[in-house]
Amino acid sequence: MQAAMVGWAHTRFGRLDEETLESLVLRVTTEALADAGVAADDVDSIHIGNLGGFDAQSFPAALPLQAAPDLRFKPATRYENACASGSAALHGALDRIAAGRSQIALVIGAEKMNALTTPEVACVLAGCSYQPEEGQLSFPGIFAQMAQAYFDRYGEQLDALAHIAAKNHANGALNPYAHIRKDLGFDYCRHASERNRMVAPPLKVSDCSTVADGAAAMIVVAPERIGDFRKAVGFRATAQVTDYLPMSMRDVIAFEGPRRAFAQAMTAAGARLDDLAFAEVHDCFTIAELLSYEAMGLAQQGEGARVILDGVSRRDGRLPINPSGGLKAKGHPVGATGVSMHVMSAMQLTGSAGDIQVPDARLGAVFNMGGSAVASYVSILEAIK
Amino acid sequence: MQAAMVGWAHTRFGRLDEETLESLVLRVTTEALADAGVAADDVDSIHIGNLGGFDAQSFPAALPLQAAPDLRFKPATRYENACASGSAALHGALDRIAAGRSQIALVIGAEKMNALTTPEVACVLAGCSYQPEEGQLSFPGIFAQMAQAYFDRYGEQLDALAHIAAKNHANGALNPYAHIRKDLGFDYCRHASERNRMVAPPLKVSDCSTVADGAAAMIVVAPERIGDFRKAVGFRATAQVTDYLPMSMRDVIAFEGPRRAFAQAMTAAGARLDDLAFAEVHDCFTIAELLSYEAMGLAQQGEGARVILDGVSRRDGRLPINPSGGLKAKGHPVGATGVSMHVMSAMQLTGSAGDIQVPDARLGAVFNMGGSAVASYVSILEAIK
Repeated sequence: MQAAMVGWAHTRFGRLDEETLESLVLRVTTEALADAGVAADDVDSIHIGNLGGFDAQSFPAALPLQAAPDLRFKPATRYENACASGSAALHGALDRIAAGRSQIALVIGAEKMNALTTPEVACVLAGCSYQPEEGQLSFPGIFAQMAQAYFDRYGEQLDALAHIAAKNHANGALNPYAHIRKDLGFDYCRHASERNRMVAPPLKVSDCSTVADGAAAMIVVAPERIGDFRKAVGFRATAQVTDYLPMSMRDVIAFEGPRRAFAQAMTAAGARLDDLAFAEVHDCFTIAELLSYEAMGLAQQGEGARVILDGVSRRDGRLPINPSGGLKAKGHPVGATGVSMHVMSAMQLTGSAGDIQVPDARLGAVFNMGGSAVASYVSILEAIK
Repeated sequence: MQAAMVGWAHTRFGRLDEETLESLVLRVTTEALADAGVAADDVDSIHIGNLGGFDAQSFPAALPLQAAPDLRFKPATRYENACASGSAALHGALDRIAAGRSQIALVIGAEKMNALTTPEVACVLAGCSYQPEEGQLSFPGIFAQMAQAYFDRYGEQLDALAHIAAKNHANGALNPYAHIRKDLGFDYCRHASERNRMVAPPLKVSDCSTVADGAAAMIVVAPERIGDFRKAVGFRATAQVTDYLPMSMRDVIAFEGPRRAFAQAMTAAGARLDDLAFAEVHDCFTIAELLSYEAMGLAQQGEGARVILDGVSRRDGRLPINPSGGLKAKGHPVGATGVSMHVMSAMQLTGSAGDIQVPDARLGAVFNMGGSAVASYVSILEAIK
């Protein structure tokens, strides 16, 4: 038996001017406890994923306590692994549960990015690359280098990237939690324009995930406690792999960290790709989704474009990828993202995903990434009840 | 049986202009592996404590991989709990080991603070207080408020605080890893002067720990692996307690979080204060050491001064507190401190502490704190071999 998610919460993602990091954290804490029907006093530990650096408040671990007096004195810890900080918090909770030290854990991912201007946000995010060598690059610049390297090795893929963007925007249009709820279409995403300007060639605005505020939370319980709850989504397997920070030390478009994380998790789950009903993958940039297709084994290296061009990853395809709209359309409040991906998947696996529901969702995968494929987390999730 | 530390490393603390966060991390990674006799490939996971915010490089989790090619692809995570980030990383490792997911874990604490000026450092640290209410205060200001509140309730304690500072400087003079290796004496610490200026009344420079660069690391192994190593210091018990972040929500000088953490750890260890040979406690400011005496039960509330005035906590007292010199003299590179406290204790418990060795060290306590008694970690450590 395995640990399971038995309740969750998710704010809308986007520009939430009325929200602070604190208000976001308190909101999802309260809502996740209520969703699971867990009393605050029954929480054994609190795990929060947050990148930080976007406003003056650091040290967010204790903020959730303010949601309920009975959370006072519970151990609370912040985890950071760049844009995979949410999954880092989840793994901390899963370790603590497997250690027998927590029966019921509260896992939160949250980020308030829009306290800063977009150039300031880019500067904070840039700290997640290797400063001595990559300090002059923004993250769009880093993924643009990856896209260009991929084009140089395997041929130009602008159609495929635009189709990925268009697919995720079409999916996001159906997701009430998404930042951008507009089906922008292939033509808009394919061509640079006044609104869809070039950010870092070959990447345009439509190739980049959004700067967003938001939070998500989940209640994770030990296997022996699943019986106490009305719904449950199990962690059939999880994997975490860390690769070198400097891009100069590795073949970055080989996506070796994500590849190993997928392989480890799928092997541990005893699952094949055909067993998956969907996957939520880390499309911080469209090229990252294309590389994820290859890392998960949907295509050989250099052939990822086929997955989208053949329709495999579309809503109605053989393996819908990012039915939520992904980071591209749902938005990417960095510390929240890993938790959000798990919550979106839990909705799918409990048949409560509404307009974004995929059919027959019994098994799903989550791939959350920090940096340029530096921190890679994969979860294989299954419907229990 | 319990997990144990089987090897460690510690840089000198202080102003280390030639070192970066990266070089500090690589140094202690290499040295801790060598000290334990562990091959890089045998490490199952990496846990790093770091506050960050002092230079452009965030996302430090992957840095240790650069110390050895065989660390590539190991899962690595950063933990943050303000000045208790080092203990947060340790607890992550202990959970993972107890979960059976790691047999051998590398735990690192590191901070490079002197990339910034002292006022800039103070600004970064101030983010660890509750911004909506305490945003105008520096950390010396916060602990000055606590000292003043204590004086108002229990009487002025300037002699006791100066004796605490003088004790820790006398101890630090003997510690080759310490930032300040000078026995400053009671008179120097008791009176404000040109060199010992008032920082935030009633706290002077001599009441404050130092801004320092430094790192420490330890190899922590599962109980069943202890037999493979030549030395071992066991975690007989650990405890983590989180209190509210806003000081307005609690009686801050009651030190309730530290008190509960001590009580939980001592109970779990089946130990009494008389069983301890020493304790390393979080003297970020002298008032914090005085409050720690009360939290650990060496004195009733309001009577902590007796512990130092009666000589109990001196090197030759009944329970030497901070034989290393503490944060006061050893220095306080914030993310490194929690790991450093455990490494200093491991030296004591293996009889390898040199000039700072306390006699008959079989059991010792560590208390590491984040913020104004917000994050509290206590370890009870015992000599195994």
